[in-house]
Amino acid sequence: MSSRFGQLFTAQTFGESHGPAVGVVVDGVPAGVPFEAARVQAALDRRRPGQSALVSPRREADRVEILSGVFEGVTLGSPVAMLVRNEDADPSAYLPLKGLFRPSHADFTTEARFGRRDWRGGGRSSARETVGRVAAGALAEAVLDAVCPVEIVGWVDVLAGDAAAVDAGRVSRVAVDAHPTRCPDPAAALRFEAEIRAARAAGDTVGGVVAVVARGLPAGLGEPVFDKLEADLGKALLSLPACKGVESGSGFAGARMRGSAHNDAFAPAPGGGVTTRTNHSGGIQGGLSNGMPVLLRAAFKPVATIFQPQDTVDAAGAAAVVAPKGRHDPCVLPRAVPMVEAMVALVLCDHVLRARGLAPVDGRGLQLPGRR
Amino acid sequence: MSSRFGQLFTAQTFGESHGPAVGVVVDGVPAGVPFEAARVQAALDRRRPGQSALVSPRREADRVEILSGVFEGVTLGSPVAMLVRNEDADPSAYLPLKGLFRPSHADFTTEARFGRRDWRGGGRSSARETVGRVAAGALAEAVLDAVCPVEIVGWVDVLAGDAAAVDAGRVSRVAVDAHPTRCPDPAAALRFEAEIRAARAAGDTVGGVVAVVARGLPAGLGEPVFDKLEADLGKALLSLPACKGVESGSGFAGARMRGSAHNDAFAPAPGGGVTTRTNHSGGIQGGLSNGMPVLLRAAFKPVATIFQPQDTVDAAGAAAVVAPKGRHDPCVLPRAVPMVEAMVALVLCDHVLRARGLAPVDGRGLQLPGRR
Amino acid sequence: MSSRFGQLFTAQTFGESHGPAVGVVVDGVPAGVPFEAARVQAALDRRRPGQSALVSPRREADRVEILSGVFEGVTLGSPVAMLVRNEDADPSAYLPLKGLFRPSHADFTTEARFGRRDWRGGGRSSARETVGRVAAGALAEAVLDAVCPVEIVGWVDVLAGDAAAVDAGRVSRVAVDAHPTRCPDPAAALRFEAEIRAARAAGDTVGGVVAVVARGLPAGLGEPVFDKLEADLGKALLSLPACKGVESGSGFAGARMRGSAHNDAFAPAPGGGVTTRTNHSGGIQGGLSNGMPVLLRAAFKPVATIFQPQDTVDAAGAAAVVAPKGRHDPCVLPRAVPMVEAMVALVLCDHVLRARGLAPVDGRGLQLPGRR
Amino acid sequence: MSSRFGQLFTAQTFGESHGPAVGVVVDGVPAGVPFEAARVQAALDRRRPGQSALVSPRREADRVEILSGVFEGVTLGSPVAMLVRNEDADPSAYLPLKGLFRPSHADFTTEARFGRRDWRGGGRSSARETVGRVAAGALAEAVLDAVCPVEIVGWVDVLAGDAAAVDAGRVSRVAVDAHPTRCPDPAAALRFEAEIRAARAAGDTVGGVVAVVARGLPAGLGEPVFDKLEADLGKALLSLPACKGVESGSGFAGARMRGSAHNDAFAPAPGGGVTTRTNHSGGIQGGLSNGMPVLLRAAFKPVATIFQPQDTVDAAGAAAVVAPKGRHDPCVLPRAVPMVEAMVALVLCDHVLRARGLAPVDGRGLQLPGRR
Repeated sequence: MSSRFGQLFTAQTFGESHGPAVGVVVDGVPAGVPFEAARVQAALDRRRPGQSALVSPRREADRVEILSGVFEGVTLGSPVAMLVRNEDADPSAYLPLKGLFRPSHADFTTEARFGRRDWRGGGRSSARETVGRVAAGALAEAVLDAVCPVEIVGWVDVLAGDAAAVDAGRVSRVAVDAHPTRCPDPAAALRFEAEIRAARAAGDTVGGVVAVVARGLPAGLGEPVFDKLEADLGKALLSLPACKGVESGSGFAGARMRGSAHNDAFAPAPGGGVTTRTNHSGGIQGGLSNGMPVLLRAAFKPVATIFQPQDTVDAAGAAAVVAPKGRHDPCVLPRAVPMVEAMVALVLCDHVLRARGLAPVDGRGLQLPGRR
Repeated sequence: MSSRFGQLFTAQTFGESHGPAVGVVVDGVPAGVPFEAARVQAALDRRRPGQSALVSPRREADRVEILSGVFEGVTLGSPVAMLVRNEDADPSAYLPLKGLFRPSHADFTTEARFGRRDWRGGGRSSARETVGRVAAGALAEAVLDAVCPVEIVGWVDVLAGDAAAVDAGRVSRVAVDAHPTRCPDPAAALRFEAEIRAARAAGDTVGGVVAVVARGLPAGLGEPVFDKLEADLGKALLSLPACKGVESGSGFAGARMRGSAHNDAFAPAPGGGVTTRTNHSGGIQGGLSNGMPVLLRAAFKPVATIFQPQDTVDAAGAAAVVAPKGRHDPCVLPRAVPMVEAMVALVLCDHVLRARGLAPVDGRGLQLPGRR
Repeated sequence: MSSRFGQLFTAQTFGESHGPAVGVVVDGVPAGVPFEAARVQAALDRRRPGQSALVSPRREADRVEILSGVFEGVTLGSPVAMLVRNEDADPSAYLPLKGLFRPSHADFTTEARFGRRDWRGGGRSSARETVGRVAAGALAEAVLDAVCPVEIVGWVDVLAGDAAAVDAGRVSRVAVDAHPTRCPDPAAALRFEAEIRAARAAGDTVGGVVAVVARGLPAGLGEPVFDKLEADLGKALLSLPACKGVESGSGFAGARMRGSAHNDAFAPAPGGGVTTRTNHSGGIQGGLSNGMPVLLRAAFKPVATIFQPQDTVDAAGAAAVVAPKGRHDPCVLPRAVPMVEAMVALVLCDHVLRARGLAPVDGRGLQLPGRR
Repeated sequence: MSSRFGQLFTAQTFGESHGPAVGVVVDGVPAGVPFEAARVQAALDRRRPGQSALVSPRREADRVEILSGVFEGVTLGSPVAMLVRNEDADPSAYLPLKGLFRPSHADFTTEARFGRRDWRGGGRSSARETVGRVAAGALAEAVLDAVCPVEIVGWVDVLAGDAAAVDAGRVSRVAVDAHPTRCPDPAAALRFEAEIRAARAAGDTVGGVVAVVARGLPAGLGEPVFDKLEADLGKALLSLPACKGVESGSGFAGARMRGSAHNDAFAPAPGGGVTTRTNHSGGIQGGLSNGMPVLLRAAFKPVATIFQPQDTVDAAGAAAVVAPKGRHDPCVLPRAVPMVEAMVALVLCDHVLRARGLAPVDGRGLQLPGRR
C-alpha cells in the first residue's frame, strides 16, 4: 500500500538503491496520449546523479525502458511500466555502516518498523526511489498536455537562508536549468553555488526551499473536503526525501496578516472572466483552484550524510561513532527540482482525471474534455 | 470520494452548514473499543461555536447521536455513524450574498467546479463540516487508547505574528483549555486575546499558527514511500479550512541550518533503548516515527469573512462590493485546536492499524498488539 | 473498510437491524443530478418488509430522510447522506437465541471474528443493511439517467427449482411488480406463490434464482484486468445476503458448449453499428460491455431461519437445540429483486464515472459526456 | 486503476502479450517472509504454455526475475516487483486479423473503449497477463504460510459437461498435477483428455468447471458487508479470462433446496471447537469463514479462438469472415487451475492482513499473529 500514489491516475513505484532496478507502474492512464521513452529520459536526466559538479558523482545513466502500455507511440489505456536498472551499485562503501544507525537517516526507523533493512545505500529509503516518481511525472505531464495543458516550473528559491528573487509568473524551465544550482536568479545562483561548495569543502551539507508554480489551471480543480488541492499537493511534496515543510500561497507569512490585507479581491479580468488583484491564496481557495497561478514552497532539510564523525548507536543500542563515506550530494536542492515538479504533475493529473469523471452532468461548472 | 479520509480506519463525512445535519461514518473500527457518546460530546464541545466570547456566537448545542456500530458500550467492528443536527441554521444573513463571491472564500471556486452551490453559510465549505472530523477523531483516540496509547496536544502557538513559549514535552490539554485562546502560555494568552478583540473591533480578523505534539508513539510508525507519517499528517492538517502551511520538526527554520547542526545524534536512552540528543526531525525520520515526540505546526490564514466593504464580482462577473454580515469568528485558531488534534488522531489511528496489518511475520520490528 | 462499495462513486452504509437507524453516505456524486426523496422512497418501498403476504410482517415504514448533498432538487456534488430510522425494532423475540448460534446464519462467524455481536435480529448481518444499498442504488440510477441512460430490470427467474419463461429483451419493472412474487411470467408466478406458501406452512423456506438485465449500455464499459464488468457485478451480487452463486451470459451452461457453438458471431447491425447474432457472452466480452443486453443470474439459498427445531451449539460450544421465532421471510427472492437491481446500478454508475474520467484523449473510443 | 487487485496486500500487474514483458508489483507485503525466485518459478511453470501436449505450443520459458523487495532471502516490507520477458513473441500470425474482430474475443470491446488496441495476440487481454497474477499468488502463499497457513488446491472438475469425482477434503496438488488435464480423478482425466483431443482435431474448443478448496482457514475471515469472503473470491475468479460463473458451497444447486435440508447444523467438534454436519455453506456464512473447507467452483467458457471460419465484421463494421491461425489452447482449464489458486491466495492473503489490522482490541475474536 505504501508505495502507491494517486486515486484514479496511480503510480506504484518499487526498487532499492542497490538492488537490481528501480521503476514504476502507472495505471489509470487514458488511451491516446502521445508518449515515448525520450520524454521520460529527458526528465530522468534532470534528476540523475553526476549531472554536474554540485551533485553526487554516482554514475548512473538511468536509461529507462518502457515495458508496457505504449503502442505505436501512444498510450493504450493499460498500465505503463517503466524500468531503470541500477548500474553503478557499489555497496562496499556501506559495509562499515551496516551495523550503525546514521543520524537523521532512516536506518534506525526502518529497522524499528521492519526488523531488518537493505543497508546498501539506504535501500528503499534512498532518494534513488524518486526515479520512479520522475518517470511517472513525465507521463502525468503528457496526459496533462492532452487534457488540460498546464505549465509546471520549480526552482531553488532559498539556499541556506539566502533567498533568490524570481518572478513566478514568468519563470521557465529553461531559465531554471541555465545554472546547475537550478536557481533562475543569476546573481543568487552564484551565491548558492559558492555556499554549496563551501559546505562540501567542510564535509557538510546545506538545505533550502524549492518553490514551484503551476500556470494555466482552470478554476475548480480539487476535491473538498479532504482532498483539497493544497492538501494533496502538500502530501506529495512532504513525501519527498528530506522535505520537512510545505506552504501554499502566503503560507506562514500570511498567518501574520490581517484578513483585510490578506483577502484577494476579485475583479473582472481584462479579457473576460474573473481574476484576483493579489494572490495570497496561491491560486487555491477552499481547496479548489481559482484560475490564478498555483504557488507552493517546500522546505528541504540539509542532507543527513555529512563527512564528519558523529555520535550514534549501533544495532545493539551501544554508543558508537559513525563517519560515512560514499557518494552523496552536499545539497539536495538542485536535484529536488524535477522531483517537486513530478509530484505536482502527478497530483494535478490525478485531479484532472477525477474532475473529468465527476464533472457536473448539466454542462455547468468544470467540464474537462473526454474529447479535446 | 472527496469526503473520505484514511486507508484502513476511514472517516466519511457529510453535511452542509445550513442543511439538516452534519456527521460522519467511521469504518475500519476494531471491535471491543470502549466508546460512548459522552466522549464525542466532550470533543465537540471544544469545537463548537458560542463556547467563549472570542468565537462565533452561532448557537449550536452540537448534540451528537451515535447511530450504529456501538453496542453495550463497546464497538462492534461495524461502521460507527455519528449525527449532529443543525439547529441554529439561519440562512437569512446570507441572502444578500447569494449572488456575490466573497473574497478568499470558496464561493467562486465552488461555483466554478460544481456549477452551483449551497450559498447558505458556505454550504459544504463551511468549517461546520469539521464536526464530522472531530467526532471521528474522538473515536480514533479511543482506538489508540486501546491499541497504542498516545497523547495528542495542540495549542495556539503564534497569533498575528506574536509567539508563545510552550514546552512541547509537557504541555497538556488542561493547560491549553485554561484560557479561551487555547494558548497555554498565560502571558501570551492575554496578548493573543487582546489581539483578537482588537481585530474584531476593527471588523477584521487575524491568523496564526497551531502547534501539535504526539507523545508516546513507538518507533517505526508510518508507511514509506508516499504515506510517510509527515506526508499524511501534513495532508490532514492542510485539509482543514484556512490552513495554508505545515511544517514538521525544524521545518522551514531547519532548511537554513547545516547538516552538522541539524542532524539528531543518537544516544543510548537512560532506561534502555535509543534516544536522540536533539529533535530537529520532529520525531520522524525517513517518514517513520523514531520514538521522540512528533511535532508539527500548521499555519492558518486570517478568517476571510471581515466586516468591511470589499471589492469583488457578482455571478455575472461584474464588479461589485460585498459587506458580509453574519456570525463569524474573528480568529479561527482557538477552535482549530481540537480540529488539529482530531486530524492527527485520525492519521495515527489509521497508521497504527495499518502497521498491525503489515507487522513483520517473525516478531522482529514493530509489533502492535491484536491483543493488548 | 468493510461497508464501503465502489471506486469513484462510493456507497458507505451503516446500521444494525435493531439499532437506532440504517443508512448510507454516497460520495463521488456529480453535481446537477435531479434527485429527491420520493425517488428513494419508491425504491425502498419495493424492498421493505410487510409489502405483501409473502414476506416478513415486520412493520417498517422505511421513511428516508436526505441529510445532505441535495439542494433545490439537484445534487451539489457533495456527499449524499440518507437515513432510515428503525421503528419496529423488537428484540424480544431474539432474547432466547442470544446465546445460541442459529445454523447457516452469521451468528457463529460474527462471534468468531469480532468476539461479540449485536444479537438483536442479526445486527449488522441482517438483510436490513440492504436499506442503504437500495437507497444508494436509487441515486445511482438518477446519475445514470443523466449521464448514460440504462434500463435495469430484475426478476425471480427460478424458485425452488421451477423456472419461469421470461424475455430478457422486453421485460419491464411494471411486469415484474404485477405479482408479489416478482416473477413476470404469470403462470410461473402462481406456481411460485404456491411453493412459497407451502414452504411457510411447513415452517420451512425456499431459495431460487434472480435474473437481471441491463439494457442500453454503450460498448466499452468495464475496466480490465481485475475490474472486469462481470467481476464487479459478480462481487456486487455475491455480497448480498444469501447469494451463493453468480453467472454471466451462458454461465455454467455455456461451460458445456464447444467454442464453435458458443461464440457470438458479429454482424452489421440493421441501423448501423455492430451487433452479435447470439448473446452467450451476456453482453460482456473481455470484461467490457459489447452493446448487447448485459445478463446475469444470481443464486439465493433458502432463508436460514426456519421454524423447526435444529441442532446447534451454544456459546460454550455445547450441543443445543434452537427453534427460532420472529418475523421472517419464507423466501427472500421477491425482496431480493430491488436489491439486485440496486447493486447493478451501483456498479454501472461507478464504471460510467470511471470511464468518463479515463476516456481516451483523442475522441476515439468511449466518450461519456461531461455535458449531456 | 484497472490492473490493481487487493486492499492491503495489493498486486499491480502490467504487460501486453507481445510487448517487451509482463509482470507485477506486489505492495503491502509484511517483512520477514521467506521468499525466493524458485518459488515463483515453480508456480509459473504450472501456468506456462508448452508444458504438455494439451495446451498452447507457444514456447515461453517464463523465467522470472525479482527486481525488488527481497533481501537475503526474506521480504523487506517494500514492494516486490517481478518481471517476465516475452521471448517467443510472434505477432506475424496476428497480422491478417489486425482489422477484424474475432468473435467472443475482446478485440471489438477494447477498440470500443480505448479507440485502439495492441492487436498482437490480444495485447493486454491475452491470458498472458495472468503471469503477473500467478507470480503474485506465489508471494501471497508465502505470506499465508508465515501468518495463517492454508492449503489451496484447485482442479478440473467438469469438462465439456462431463464431471469428475473428487474428494475436496483430501485432494492435493500432487494428485492434480499427476495428469496434464489437472483432473485428479484418473478415470475422468482420461475422458477429459480424449475430449480435448477430439475438440482440437475438429479445430474446436471446450469449456468446463474448475473447483478449488481452501483448507485450514480459521473461523472469522472476511469483511462484511460488501467484502464478504465469497464476494471477493467470486470477483477474483470472475476476473480471470473466460470465467463466466462462480458458485460458493452448494451454489446454484443449493437454490433448489429447502432451508431445512440446506442448513448446516452446528455440532461440537471431536477435538474441541465447533464443526458443521454438512457444508452446504462452502465454509462461508454471512461472508465470513466458519472453519470448514472453503469451496468454490468457476465456470470457464470454451476458448474463443477456434480454427474454423466464422462470420464477423471488420473495423469499418462491414461483414467479413475470420479464420484464426496462431498458437492456442483447445481448452483453458488445465492452465486455469494455477490461476484460480493464485487468485484465491491473493484474496485470502489480503483478508488475513486486513483481519490482523482490524483484530478486536481485547483479545476476543479472531487474532492473527503479528508474531507467529
